[in-house]
Amino acid sequence: MGTERIETDLIGPLPIPGDVLYGVHTRRAELNFTVSGLRLKDFPELIQSMAMVKKAAARANAELGLLSAEKASAISEACDELIELKCVDENFPVDMMQGGAGTSTNMNVNEVVANQSLLKLGANVGDYDKLHPNDDVNLSQSTNDVYPTALRLTILRACEGLIESQVGLRDAFRAQAHEYATVLKVGRTQLQDAVPMTVGQEFGAFAELIDEDIDQLQAASRLMKEVNLGGSAIGTSINVPRGFGAAACAHLTQISGIQLTRARNLIEATSDTGGFVSISSVLKRIAVKLTKVCNDLRLLSSGPRGGLGEIRLPPVQAGSSIMPGKVNAVIPEMMNQIAFQVIGNDPTVTLAASAGQLQLNAMEPVIILNILQSMRMLTRGMEIFKQRCVVGIEVDVDRCKDLLDQSLVLATPLAMLIGYSKAAQLSKKALAEKRGLRQVVEEEGILTSSQVEELFEVTSAFANF
Amino acid sequence: MGTERIETDLIGPLPIPGDVLYGVHTRRAELNFTVSGLRLKDFPELIQSMAMVKKAAARANAELGLLSAEKASAISEACDELIELKCVDENFPVDMMQGGAGTSTNMNVNEVVANQSLLKLGANVGDYDKLHPNDDVNLSQSTNDVYPTALRLTILRACEGLIESQVGLRDAFRAQAHEYATVLKVGRTQLQDAVPMTVGQEFGAFAELIDEDIDQLQAASRLMKEVNLGGSAIGTSINVPRGFGAAACAHLTQISGIQLTRARNLIEATSDTGGFVSISSVLKRIAVKLTKVCNDLRLLSSGPRGGLGEIRLPPVQAGSSIMPGKVNAVIPEMMNQIAFQVIGNDPTVTLAASAGQLQLNAMEPVIILNILQSMRMLTRGMEIFKQRCVVGIEVDVDRCKDLLDQSLVLATPLAMLIGYSKAAQLSKKALAEKRGLRQVVEEEGILTSSQVEELFEVTSAFANF
Amino acid sequence: MGTERIETDLIGPLPIPGDVLYGVHTRRAELNFTVSGLRLKDFPELIQSMAMVKKAAARANAELGLLSAEKASAISEACDELIELKCVDENFPVDMMQGGAGTSTNMNVNEVVANQSLLKLGANVGDYDKLHPNDDVNLSQSTNDVYPTALRLTILRACEGLIESQVGLRDAFRAQAHEYATVLKVGRTQLQDAVPMTVGQEFGAFAELIDEDIDQLQAASRLMKEVNLGGSAIGTSINVPRGFGAAACAHLTQISGIQLTRARNLIEATSDTGGFVSISSVLKRIAVKLTKVCNDLRLLSSGPRGGLGEIRLPPVQAGSSIMPGKVNAVIPEMMNQIAFQVIGNDPTVTLAASAGQLQLNAMEPVIILNILQSMRMLTRGMEIFKQRCVVGIEVDVDRCKDLLDQSLVLATPLAMLIGYSKAAQLSKKALAEKRGLRQVVEEEGILTSSQVEELFEVTSAFANF
Amino acid sequence: MGTERIETDLIGPLPIPGDVLYGVHTRRAELNFTVSGLRLKDFPELIQSMAMVKKAAARANAELGLLSAEKASAISEACDELIELKCVDENFPVDMMQGGAGTSTNMNVNEVVANQSLLKLGANVGDYDKLHPNDDVNLSQSTNDVYPTALRLTILRACEGLIESQVGLRDAFRAQAHEYATVLKVGRTQLQDAVPMTVGQEFGAFAELIDEDIDQLQAASRLMKEVNLGGSAIGTSINVPRGFGAAACAHLTQISGIQLTRARNLIEATSDTGGFVSISSVLKRIAVKLTKVCNDLRLLSSGPRGGLGEIRLPPVQAGSSIMPGKVNAVIPEMMNQIAFQVIGNDPTVTLAASAGQLQLNAMEPVIILNILQSMRMLTRGMEIFKQRCVVGIEVDVDRCKDLLDQSLVLATPLAMLIGYSKAAQLSKKALAEKRGLRQVVEEEGILTSSQVEELFEVTSAFANF
Repeated sequence: MGTERIETDLIGPLPIPGDVLYGVHTRRAELNFTVSGLRLKDFPELIQSMAMVKKAAARANAELGLLSAEKASAISEACDELIELKCVDENFPVDMMQGGAGTSTNMNVNEVVANQSLLKLGANVGDYDKLHPNDDVNLSQSTNDVYPTALRLTILRACEGLIESQVGLRDAFRAQAHEYATVLKVGRTQLQDAVPMTVGQEFGAFAELIDEDIDQLQAASRLMKEVNLGGSAIGTSINVPRGFGAAACAHLTQISGIQLTRARNLIEATSDTGGFVSISSVLKRIAVKLTKVCNDLRLLSSGPRGGLGEIRLPPVQAGSSIMPGKVNAVIPEMMNQIAFQVIGNDPTVTLAASAGQLQLNAMEPVIILNILQSMRMLTRGMEIFKQRCVVGIEVDVDRCKDLLDQSLVLATPLAMLIGYSKAAQLSKKALAEKRGLRQVVEEEGILTSSQVEELFEVTSAFANF
Repeated sequence: MGTERIETDLIGPLPIPGDVLYGVHTRRAELNFTVSGLRLKDFPELIQSMAMVKKAAARANAELGLLSAEKASAISEACDELIELKCVDENFPVDMMQGGAGTSTNMNVNEVVANQSLLKLGANVGDYDKLHPNDDVNLSQSTNDVYPTALRLTILRACEGLIESQVGLRDAFRAQAHEYATVLKVGRTQLQDAVPMTVGQEFGAFAELIDEDIDQLQAASRLMKEVNLGGSAIGTSINVPRGFGAAACAHLTQISGIQLTRARNLIEATSDTGGFVSISSVLKRIAVKLTKVCNDLRLLSSGPRGGLGEIRLPPVQAGSSIMPGKVNAVIPEMMNQIAFQVIGNDPTVTLAASAGQLQLNAMEPVIILNILQSMRMLTRGMEIFKQRCVVGIEVDVDRCKDLLDQSLVLATPLAMLIGYSKAAQLSKKALAEKRGLRQVVEEEGILTSSQVEELFEVTSAFANF
Repeated sequence: MGTERIETDLIGPLPIPGDVLYGVHTRRAELNFTVSGLRLKDFPELIQSMAMVKKAAARANAELGLLSAEKASAISEACDELIELKCVDENFPVDMMQGGAGTSTNMNVNEVVANQSLLKLGANVGDYDKLHPNDDVNLSQSTNDVYPTALRLTILRACEGLIESQVGLRDAFRAQAHEYATVLKVGRTQLQDAVPMTVGQEFGAFAELIDEDIDQLQAASRLMKEVNLGGSAIGTSINVPRGFGAAACAHLTQISGIQLTRARNLIEATSDTGGFVSISSVLKRIAVKLTKVCNDLRLLSSGPRGGLGEIRLPPVQAGSSIMPGKVNAVIPEMMNQIAFQVIGNDPTVTLAASAGQLQLNAMEPVIILNILQSMRMLTRGMEIFKQRCVVGIEVDVDRCKDLLDQSLVLATPLAMLIGYSKAAQLSKKALAEKRGLRQVVEEEGILTSSQVEELFEVTSAFANF
Repeated sequence: MGTERIETDLIGPLPIPGDVLYGVHTRRAELNFTVSGLRLKDFPELIQSMAMVKKAAARANAELGLLSAEKASAISEACDELIELKCVDENFPVDMMQGGAGTSTNMNVNEVVANQSLLKLGANVGDYDKLHPNDDVNLSQSTNDVYPTALRLTILRACEGLIESQVGLRDAFRAQAHEYATVLKVGRTQLQDAVPMTVGQEFGAFAELIDEDIDQLQAASRLMKEVNLGGSAIGTSINVPRGFGAAACAHLTQISGIQLTRARNLIEATSDTGGFVSISSVLKRIAVKLTKVCNDLRLLSSGPRGGLGEIRLPPVQAGSSIMPGKVNAVIPEMMNQIAFQVIGNDPTVTLAASAGQLQLNAMEPVIILNILQSMRMLTRGMEIFKQRCVVGIEVDVDRCKDLLDQSLVLATPLAMLIGYSKAAQLSKKALAEKRGLRQVVEEEGILTSSQVEELFEVTSAFANF
């Protein structure tokens, strides 16, 4: 373990542990914000994005003649190490729930990059005369432009994983829809037996709703591609050399592999959190849909005797310590709770986004914390949901058929053939006699069994006309 | 129709319709705030409370020698007419969604009371030299103390009706619980068959949860009894004669029949909206519980064939235009939606309550609008829910018995008698053979039918030990 | 007043007032749902959309030979009258807060259109043998496809007015931005003086953020153009003649003037409420932004002496009954409260959207109520905000200059010219001596007054590079 | 590191790492729920409460003769070690975001306690024949009664720390209120200068609002004292020996030092989450108030030149990398964001609480996760807020006086002395001449300087009458 260093800021001198790469600003923040236990190191994707921004800035500064090639190269290498997630655990202790509009996150990265660069240059940690966290690493930048830029980039990168999870889940439902495409069952509205449909149609609707959410997420993520790099403190680009913003943005596009553009109005972009509101809203929408899907699966698998029992979810753990053999829908329950969390994270984002004042919104740290947590839980949750639940769902085909035959849902298509009043009369009779309408219809010779089958099939075939 | 009058304020002269009792301040507000279509006249309970406050203030002012007996008497009579809801419809046009921290509501009442008083004194409407909206009706008061006081009083009075609805609903569930106290059924956890219980226990739990909410509402309503009357603009009681606050509060207690006290710290009380947050939270809690109750009723009545079908809700309207004989749970669905609205009104109150600044919270108009709407919808909704749904619920006793007998829930109590592994073995057998565990147990001579009944009954009897 | 009629449904006979055009289903619903006081007639835009759908369906049915030309023509004329808002007030009493998934709204329209059509055909009200609410007006339809279709159409039509309000407000801010394009002022981050900017830049940012919201609203409204007409009860198109859906959709496009398409998966579309979630989210986003704008205006106009005082809002009413001459920011306060309401309506939509079950979401009535109320309040609110506030804002140019000159914000651009440490030293001196940095800089001969001006101007000119 | 063990459940055999004390059920859950990264071990307060419950149950079982003294003693010792937080880190890997209604948490504790007990008995880990996680540690219990009981106990214990933080913060504001009791300043409503007050009154109001929140938290925490121990799976106490519930509850009271009682209706209590809703609502209320306090502090400390500048917050870190000397209100900003998080956690609790179905609410894991996180962040946040901000606040007494003298707030008390119209006239004159009203009043000989002082003092003295 290294020897303690002393660094000084406007408050005064402060000891820094000898074996870390951060400096006085990080250490102040570490002491100031001991709130959530969730630290910058727990969100390495954000550190990576910050490092990409710093690398892009170094390149742009070098091109503009503001930074020596040697320094730029050292910074660039230091950034690459962070992008590869080297030395992350011990060097990013700042709490995600921080005041200061992201300044502490920015300074944590500036200091670590500076010290790592110093080591590469053969200098000592803390030897800022040779390469400075602010004057070199943060050159031509302000927290107020690099931090929001890095947040947007982080979200864009996280979207890729989230969409992959969505695609996986959608495809799993599609496969189930094909598997059970022709199994007839009771369709229900308002929890009352309504008209016939197929299991394939039911699962297909789940696939479709996920597919629509993928579209929405992609549309919202495009809003993240507009960054305010080069806007400096309030978007007036004060102290930023002409050309820096465009150059840094181009480098960042190249480094990240994601096409970024600069906001048309940098003043507005500096305090604007509308894009975050939109992303959070789409995450909420995804959660709303997953709530519906999981509620349906739990309902359809209810039983085994006193419920609908049309499907069986794969058992993944014992359900009870005192009820022998009980198996519960634990994976959909987990997904439901993730959805509640994501839905609740949205008002936090809303509140923080509403709290912008004049030329800045200082509440971005809580915004990014909530968005990243929501994205992470949705991504992981959908992957688990697919693997440990959806792919293993089995349909109880007999049960579906029994319920359909016992039901009165034949009444509606029947009305087309034999008239509404005759159909209603038979339906009433079946209800009174506690028999299925199918049985009554067949026994009374109104339709043969194969005619009933045809009626069901014609019905369901209508779906895609 | 009367002739148009002209009244003047700091903005300038403004024509006032001749046949109304309000004046220039009300008219300005009417023109400024044309937002929600919900006007003061649509919330007559608030007008009544304001009139009670004005009457109490007039009495206190008269006692302190600040207001002549003649004026005080005229004001008092004018207030009584508002309390009896005379002349309300045409005279209170101000939108509930108003800026100005309630000043427009206060001035609307001041002006109408003043003009009504003038008429009683034999003077003309608008003859404010003889009795003035501000100098007489509003004497010793500020919007910032009378408005919050009237809001609190309105909520307290509305609580009475709400609690009455809760009591009615609770008692309806209790009656049903007694009616079906001994009907055995499957108890379910996580939508899976769990252990036996009685229908009475299920309905009794609904009654109990409503009962607990009544307690919570009563506790929160006590917070409303602390008023800031006499605090004036910011709680320093500036321009308020010594003794006025206490006297006015005592009169208001007498007039309203509700025991009010003065806040211990008037500065804090002036900007404080904590009590509103608490009331809104309890309304949300009530809504959360009703959501659960209605979801359960809809689930238990699902079917008639492809659902649980343990209960039947009384039909109150046809359910479908194309599906013959379909009846839906429309009353619980209505109640569910009321609950969603109330739950959504809570964040609006939260946001408004958070938006207080320095010595005042200017957002109280949207707070009271949401609280009163929530209270009204809950009060009316629960009354309808009781009358048109709960009292008419019928239990399908046969269905409950069938599901119980077919189920495996006997396994748990059985394990106490014959051991866990033997119970599990029988349960597995029943599942494999698609038979009920009861049937297996009886056929194999393990228990007689009456022993099974006893087992169920003993089980359910445990509930109240 | 006409003689009371008797109509009968599955519950039994029911008297209907003689002078109304609705029938038994409407009357049942009127009696069942007396909750919110907000009735269908209070949302005439929804009645219009329903009438457009009914007209489109009648045309399609006629083309397919299912409806006689005479009936189709009568229905079409009856619908036109509703579109022109004739006879709306007395005939649409159903509460917006209704159970039944919109069936009561659909039946209310079916019945009124049927009776109006009967009158046109020379028959009597209630003479349903000649033209039937269900068999003719509702022919080939289900509540579950016509109701969501009408909701979407209503939202699309309401978007037009909302966007108009947004455009008006944006342009008002743009005009102010041009008016004060060159007035220098202190830019602030985290409420602390930061760097110089112009008033034009500040107002221009407001215009820009509204402009971005217009884009978002337009994008979300496109989701509303996908309708499930022809899907019938659950999207299987049961009992719907082949070709009806496409034809009805084409007619509806022609009648409404809005290009609609049919959802690719009607099963999914029937229970899907994702589009409503997205629309509500954009309304929330608009509200979030307006919150920020109004907070800023209230802050910038704080004072007149003890606040920032950089701008003056036009006085629209007296601010206080006891404080002479006090004028408050009542219009922004109104707008803030509208925003709180809209933000709170979003979770209600979220909850309702999450509550879909299996093949339907029965909670759409509360969804549309909240979306339409939010749209209405935003539309009216922004219009008032523009007219009664933004266009009349005056900037106190002297105050802006004084604050700028007294401030230390010159330090940042100065650092570019004379070095960071010299700038910091001068800044410290100014702070200690309670003088402005400009004064110090000029008095010490570091810069001339015109050099300072240039520095400010160069700074602000960077904004658009 | 120990050798891998194999344990078996109804799914089949599963390898367990050799050096851990948990078993197959924990391992299944670890694999099933890899969502949030927040594990049971990160909430040791919950493990402690579970251990207390297990210890109480063991004692009760021993008393009832169901458990041998030897086993009971071993279990009790094992529980004590968990209460002392021994062996927690490596043995509680289950994710807090879990399906299964808490079963996995319960089984994790059962397994660790069982294995720890086995070691104490000289047996091997996994030797469940000698002491079994279910048959012994979980004896007479169900997840559905022990888990909610432990949640309530955890919240009660966390309340102690939270209240301590509240008390600390309240007292810090009280001390500041005393320190500046007599410093006069401008009181503001709606951000407009209103009437005079003292700094002490302003800070005193902050203290008061925190004090009221302490009362509310204490009231809500009392709801947590009602537990459903002994209710078993659904509250019917199935398989629970008579007397167990009461005995276990008494032991738990003794072990925890917190007086607990048993719910009067165990059926209701099993599925009820009302108490959690109430606790979460109070946390939200605390957050609402803190939002207001922090907003006020940030506003009052705005400047240093272009803002109100009445107070100075202690600098705790540098505010900007490019603006020399800028210091921001980072601690209140942190607190604001904590408040946003807590406010957003409340809807998550609301949603989860609404999602109870029939005899259970399976969503309690997400409820407790959100409540504990909110409590933790509020507790830590307020402590930091007190230490690093409130105790160090300095009032700029000169600035307060200057703003007061320049202002027109004298008009209101003046109106009492010289009449409203004369006061208004002087106020107008001061405004026009850009002078303070005090200056005008003194220069025109209307009042002497000491009379003005008296007027202010009399005014503020009214506050406590």
